[in-house]
Amino acid sequence: MKIIYLFEEGSKEMKELLGNKGAQLCEMYRIGVPVPPGFVISTKACISYFKERKLSDDLKQKVIEALKEIEKRTGKKFGDKKNPLLLSVRSGAPVSMPGMMDTILNLGLNDEIVEELAKSNEWFAYDTYRRFLSMFGEIVMNIDKDKFEEIMNKWKEIEKVKSDQELSVNALKEIVKEYKELYKLPSPQEQLFMAIEAVFKSWNNERAIHYRKIHNLPDDLGTGVVIQAMVFGNLGEDCLTGVAFTRNPSDGKKELYGEFLINAQGEDIVSGRRNPMPISILKEKFPEIYKELLEIGEKLERHYKDMQDIEFTVEKGKLYILQTRTAKRTAKASVKIAVDMVNEGIIDKKEAITRIDANSLEKLLHKQIKKTDNLKIIARGLPASPGAAVGKICFSADKASMIGDKEKVILVRNETTPDDIHGVVKSQGILTARGGITSHAAVVSRGLGIPCVVGCSALKINEEEGYIEVNGTILKEGDTIAIDGTTGEVILGEVELIEAELIEELKKLLEWADEYRRLKVYANADLPEDAKKALYFGAEGIGLCRTEHMFLGNRLPIVREMILDKSKKREAFKKLLEEQKKDFFELFKVMDGKPVVIRLLDAPLHEFLPKYEDLVEKKIKGRFSSKEKIIFEKVKELKEVNPMLGFRGVRLAIVEPEIYKMQARAIIEASIMAMENGYKAIPYIEIPIVSDANEIKEIKKYIIKEIEKVFKEKGKEIDYKIGAMIELPRACFVADEIAKEVDFISFGTNDLTQTTFGYSRDDAEEEFLGIYFEKKILEKDPFSVLDEKGVGELMKIAVNKARKIKGKEIEIGICGEHGGEPNSIRFCHKIGLDLVSCSPYRIAIARLSAAQASIIDNNK
Amino acid sequence: MKIIYLFEEGSKEMKELLGNKGAQLCEMYRIGVPVPPGFVISTKACISYFKERKLSDDLKQKVIEALKEIEKRTGKKFGDKKNPLLLSVRSGAPVSMPGMMDTILNLGLNDEIVEELAKSNEWFAYDTYRRFLSMFGEIVMNIDKDKFEEIMNKWKEIEKVKSDQELSVNALKEIVKEYKELYKLPSPQEQLFMAIEAVFKSWNNERAIHYRKIHNLPDDLGTGVVIQAMVFGNLGEDCLTGVAFTRNPSDGKKELYGEFLINAQGEDIVSGRRNPMPISILKEKFPEIYKELLEIGEKLERHYKDMQDIEFTVEKGKLYILQTRTAKRTAKASVKIAVDMVNEGIIDKKEAITRIDANSLEKLLHKQIKKTDNLKIIARGLPASPGAAVGKICFSADKASMIGDKEKVILVRNETTPDDIHGVVKSQGILTARGGITSHAAVVSRGLGIPCVVGCSALKINEEEGYIEVNGTILKEGDTIAIDGTTGEVILGEVELIEAELIEELKKLLEWADEYRRLKVYANADLPEDAKKALYFGAEGIGLCRTEHMFLGNRLPIVREMILDKSKKREAFKKLLEEQKKDFFELFKVMDGKPVVIRLLDAPLHEFLPKYEDLVEKKIKGRFSSKEKIIFEKVKELKEVNPMLGFRGVRLAIVEPEIYKMQARAIIEASIMAMENGYKAIPYIEIPIVSDANEIKEIKKYIIKEIEKVFKEKGKEIDYKIGAMIELPRACFVADEIAKEVDFISFGTNDLTQTTFGYSRDDAEEEFLGIYFEKKILEKDPFSVLDEKGVGELMKIAVNKARKIKGKEIEIGICGEHGGEPNSIRFCHKIGLDLVSCSPYRIAIARLSAAQASIIDNNK
Repeated sequence: MKIIYLFEEGSKEMKELLGNKGAQLCEMYRIGVPVPPGFVISTKACISYFKERKLSDDLKQKVIEALKEIEKRTGKKFGDKKNPLLLSVRSGAPVSMPGMMDTILNLGLNDEIVEELAKSNEWFAYDTYRRFLSMFGEIVMNIDKDKFEEIMNKWKEIEKVKSDQELSVNALKEIVKEYKELYKLPSPQEQLFMAIEAVFKSWNNERAIHYRKIHNLPDDLGTGVVIQAMVFGNLGEDCLTGVAFTRNPSDGKKELYGEFLINAQGEDIVSGRRNPMPISILKEKFPEIYKELLEIGEKLERHYKDMQDIEFTVEKGKLYILQTRTAKRTAKASVKIAVDMVNEGIIDKKEAITRIDANSLEKLLHKQIKKTDNLKIIARGLPASPGAAVGKICFSADKASMIGDKEKVILVRNETTPDDIHGVVKSQGILTARGGITSHAAVVSRGLGIPCVVGCSALKINEEEGYIEVNGTILKEGDTIAIDGTTGEVILGEVELIEAELIEELKKLLEWADEYRRLKVYANADLPEDAKKALYFGAEGIGLCRTEHMFLGNRLPIVREMILDKSKKREAFKKLLEEQKKDFFELFKVMDGKPVVIRLLDAPLHEFLPKYEDLVEKKIKGRFSSKEKIIFEKVKELKEVNPMLGFRGVRLAIVEPEIYKMQARAIIEASIMAMENGYKAIPYIEIPIVSDANEIKEIKKYIIKEIEKVFKEKGKEIDYKIGAMIELPRACFVADEIAKEVDFISFGTNDLTQTTFGYSRDDAEEEFLGIYFEKKILEKDPFSVLDEKGVGELMKIAVNKARKIKGKEIEIGICGEHGGEPNSIRFCHKIGLDLVSCSPYRIAIARLSAAQASIIDNNK
Repeated sequence: MKIIYLFEEGSKEMKELLGNKGAQLCEMYRIGVPVPPGFVISTKACISYFKERKLSDDLKQKVIEALKEIEKRTGKKFGDKKNPLLLSVRSGAPVSMPGMMDTILNLGLNDEIVEELAKSNEWFAYDTYRRFLSMFGEIVMNIDKDKFEEIMNKWKEIEKVKSDQELSVNALKEIVKEYKELYKLPSPQEQLFMAIEAVFKSWNNERAIHYRKIHNLPDDLGTGVVIQAMVFGNLGEDCLTGVAFTRNPSDGKKELYGEFLINAQGEDIVSGRRNPMPISILKEKFPEIYKELLEIGEKLERHYKDMQDIEFTVEKGKLYILQTRTAKRTAKASVKIAVDMVNEGIIDKKEAITRIDANSLEKLLHKQIKKTDNLKIIARGLPASPGAAVGKICFSADKASMIGDKEKVILVRNETTPDDIHGVVKSQGILTARGGITSHAAVVSRGLGIPCVVGCSALKINEEEGYIEVNGTILKEGDTIAIDGTTGEVILGEVELIEAELIEELKKLLEWADEYRRLKVYANADLPEDAKKALYFGAEGIGLCRTEHMFLGNRLPIVREMILDKSKKREAFKKLLEEQKKDFFELFKVMDGKPVVIRLLDAPLHEFLPKYEDLVEKKIKGRFSSKEKIIFEKVKELKEVNPMLGFRGVRLAIVEPEIYKMQARAIIEASIMAMENGYKAIPYIEIPIVSDANEIKEIKKYIIKEIEKVFKEKGKEIDYKIGAMIELPRACFVADEIAKEVDFISFGTNDLTQTTFGYSRDDAEEEFLGIYFEKKILEKDPFSVLDEKGVGELMKIAVNKARKIKGKEIEIGICGEHGGEPNSIRFCHKIGLDLVSCSPYRIAIARLSAAQASIIDNNK
């Protein structure tokens, strides 16, 4: 089995085998990008390692052989004191997991070699040695990193310096001495084998497992190991190290973007310990290097047809590319880059459409802080992940993780580390005092779409005493602040957040998407304001207008009268009719010429009365008015064991037809009123909780009669449609019979998921679903992502049965929350639905997902 | 279109066209049974009539022609005063609906004819005339029957006689005179046409519609009309009329059984107005007639291969058979007759098995009154429908119908009429003062399997004042009595009812059934007593042992400790383990060598704690102990919105594994204990509320470990199986994945029906299902009869998926209530289940139904 690949033996297609980092290094080598010589140990070797729990002799042998090739190419020799070859040993999984696994740099040093090195550059020699000793000690020898930090800090104090760079050679020598007392450094060759093993092991460290869980990555791929000659950015003032994006990862602008540090190694940037310089300064200070980097960037972009994230090092004026990978970017950048690349002729429209993670668009429509005169901007940091957030200050990831579900928190840290991930995901926003826009906090936040401000050096965080000093202001844990990840501002106190608008590039992308998609996209909207928002985002109709809210607010007293007092029922219905008519008229006005699916009352009557528990309390306390007594009796009568499966929707309407009669009349009267006012209403009347076609027949009997009556009274007619909401398994099996009775059906997949799984959402989420996800009993939350195995099968059955009766004559849609979720939309496309309906804010996602589904479907 | 059939033109196969009565008359005519000449108007004519709402001229023409044929055969002439032909005009639907539609006898009379008739037999002439006038008046002319009764009663009072027969000729003449003042009698021919129309119309009278609804008969068949020469049982003392069953309809004994009246017309018997003589007296008084009747009875039985119910009349010593039909009989008789007929060589075993209505067996296992020394037998009537009943006296059908759902009532009437049917069905038992064993009350009760005592002449019912006098005792409405329909006894006060045992013939029939059935029949039984009963009725195993009850009673305090006090959890589990072990051991002892499917705890924990509402009340009243405070907090925590879809069964077990661990251990320890005591335990461990195969995997992980531990501790191993209860739609769709994990699956169709329809049974039955059945939105109650369209389709999907993985290796059963319902069992057979499990009392039904399913399946 071939387990080691020289760079010329691999290519970018071999990610699975070589890991992403390794494959990209091979690819760069092949296309002539200057990379330090090296080779890759394949992921297969990692998988074997986890079976055998030790490095095989075969692997060791082959490593030694490959090493000889590097020695030949560099003219240096591993372990040789005169002309030593130093190595970097880096992890690289098939799917990049930045910062999650281990890396060891400067490997191959020992006292003798360092002594020799010191002859030419003493400071460099000891600086590199102390870096290697602590890195090797921490990662390979498992020594607590605090011990190294302590020694380091002690010497900084002794020398009264702030940064590592300022330490004297003497101090460095002392540090090395003290480091060496912590463990015994093995021989260079032993170092190499131990480092390889440590990298393998890091595939299964806690951080990495957690990361894979969050990102839904499989656990059995293993990592590759890249072994490469070291190049040094810390050999002097003509040396530097940096990170560059070929475009701006925040907003997508076409420009080299990144940072660098002179006389430093890469880890100094990533760790956020030193504040690096922006790449614009590179252009000033090293114009030749900048130019070469720019050219390499363009070359890589054209080659990979995507924006790249490049690590580079300049050793004594010579530029080396250490790594390239598809760059992470904000949703906003992602859209802009995709659209720009189409315009630049790099990719085509289909590629642009399918490249965007549809879910990410939600992040794109970021909230902004409402500008007012009295915003107290107390500090400014680097804008690292766009969007605004408000919340209570939280100093630790543990705490944020604990309370983040219940309260809005902003995690405030000097810097974040991969260990903080559990707190980051539960925070509204991240604010750090240190680090740049490629620091851990920044990268992770952008990936998760969480607003983030980094490098806000004005923050003096005193974790132990639990306060922050910011330019004279004292903030305590629990105080409310806001951050703006788009501007870098930190604001004191509560602020109002406002919704964002569609950016131009997204509009363009969605226009392209509209050319490709087959599914229509409607919105779930109850109020005229929602409808307006839906239209703005591109909705072609309203797929679900719930009428429950029309029975609340100032109508509640009328509704209660209707329920409680038979003698006032007629009067109550009359009043409600007038109110509903207005509701529908306003909606029709906004949606002029577009369909509006109105679901007749779905909720059980007891939802309009006070809660039983509250009444009992009052009753026992003897504070019952005679009216409350009547209410109490009715509440008792209507009380249900399982209201979700109870007396509601069409069931209620069959027993008490007046409600639907009134609603049908209101819809039709409003439609005619719209017509008389120059608008076009296209009403779809939808009947909820259907389990049998006879239910529809029964309802149709009387509402059609009522509608005909309205036509006669008004002397005018309008087109309308009647449909059924399919949200019970039984309805799916009789969808053919239902299809005979209706013009359209719409899947209510929220309830369908509840009944298919037998999960009461209210109870399940609180009581056991969390543990189900944790134990991986369910891979995904079926209330978020449509369950194709069960719910999806039911939908397929229903669609087939309905189409068998009416073919394309019957309109079939979905209006559960899944209607705005990309995977679910893909499924809806596949099984032949006509439309998806979702919340106005997810319309963009739905338009894009629908187009992606069409494109993927046609490519197959 | 041929719409009229002479008797020789029809046959018994033509029921649909000629109605049952007409077809049987034709058949009798063909096989040489003496029937009066006549013809039949087909049901098609009736259907046409309902379209046109009048008799067609064509029909009238053809009636006149057919009439001529009768005139030829009888030598009499319709409407002729010298030698008049009188006719009976009778209804007869394709499916017999006794007493529900109308009949007119003695048709063709008028003043002139009667005058002539009177010359030879004056009393007969006027008696017949007054009968005809009232019957025609009531049925055809729609005159209130009370008016005729009033006149009749007035003359009885004047002449101080009790029965109609005792009236003088003079009185009859006066009665006729007064009757004729009520309406104008049309000409004989007009009478005939009007009578035909009235019979047609009676197809759609309220009684008939109600009857068809109860018996699930279609409304569009129409009735035939039989027109036949009258023969007279009331021409003198050598005339009689009677009803005879070829076997005893109560117990199935082979004997002529029935009653007759001398000098009477048939209606005198059916109406129950005169108390007839038993057929044994016919044997004494008219041995020749008796012999001829016996022979005809046997001939008809052999011909029809079933017991017959014969109406006969003797006119001047000549026997005529007026009607034969398959006799209604009690379930007990039905079984005995089927078994006897196999033994007599009339039918074969398969016929015997398929002939029995499996549902009726439930009635067969009738309750009996527990004999004690102090039973107060206050009267005796005729035993008309077997079984015993206890309840409160109710004087009216309306009242019985109203309160019969909530309370047990005995309907007590002088006699019942078809108008009383709504009250009869809601009563536990029927008791009448008048009428014989073929009276309305008797026939209807037997059909419905309701215990009934008739002709209890000791009852003096004073309806208006609301009391009964019985041999000196006064009973008021609402007082409790018992009746024994097997013995005819009426008993005062509350009595204890006991279950009956299998009769010999049923045992035989079920043995035969066992030869044919493929489905195994198990019982749902939780306790050793239930298990014993199940074995007695022939169960081959326990298909569902619920363990909930094992957490109640004296174990409840332990269970509460387990839930409430973490520190005592361990101890509580230990105690519960010992208790459960005993429970299972006792069950294994009884079921020695037969499988026992034990369902692990299914109920949510809050079911073992006090009700929230009760605690709230107590809390508000300030009467909370500190322990109650803890309980209240826990109850609040565990409270659910929809407990049916909540935190229970496997879900609870995944979050809190200790309960299932303990139960698995108890099962296995008990099995080993059984083995050590010489019994063979075959435990099946069943996991409830499964929605995904991963749930099973998770549970198996730890219970198998626990079981292995027990094996190690005890140094013994036993076979056991693990299975899943499939009661959620999702589980059906992943039944293949589930099948990989389990040895057996069992459909819990109660819950599966709830989730498939989205009906909470508790709420639906109370709030809307009644109206759904009334409005025929649902044809049948899906909780009683398995819904094949939805639930059944899900089961099919699951069976196919499971069999695809494991073929016949996986055992598939059903343990919902449907497992004891014949239609549902048929369905389970068809889709290839291995077993049905039902309540012990329905085992017999299940054995028979399973055999019927096999036989029907093989015949196809």
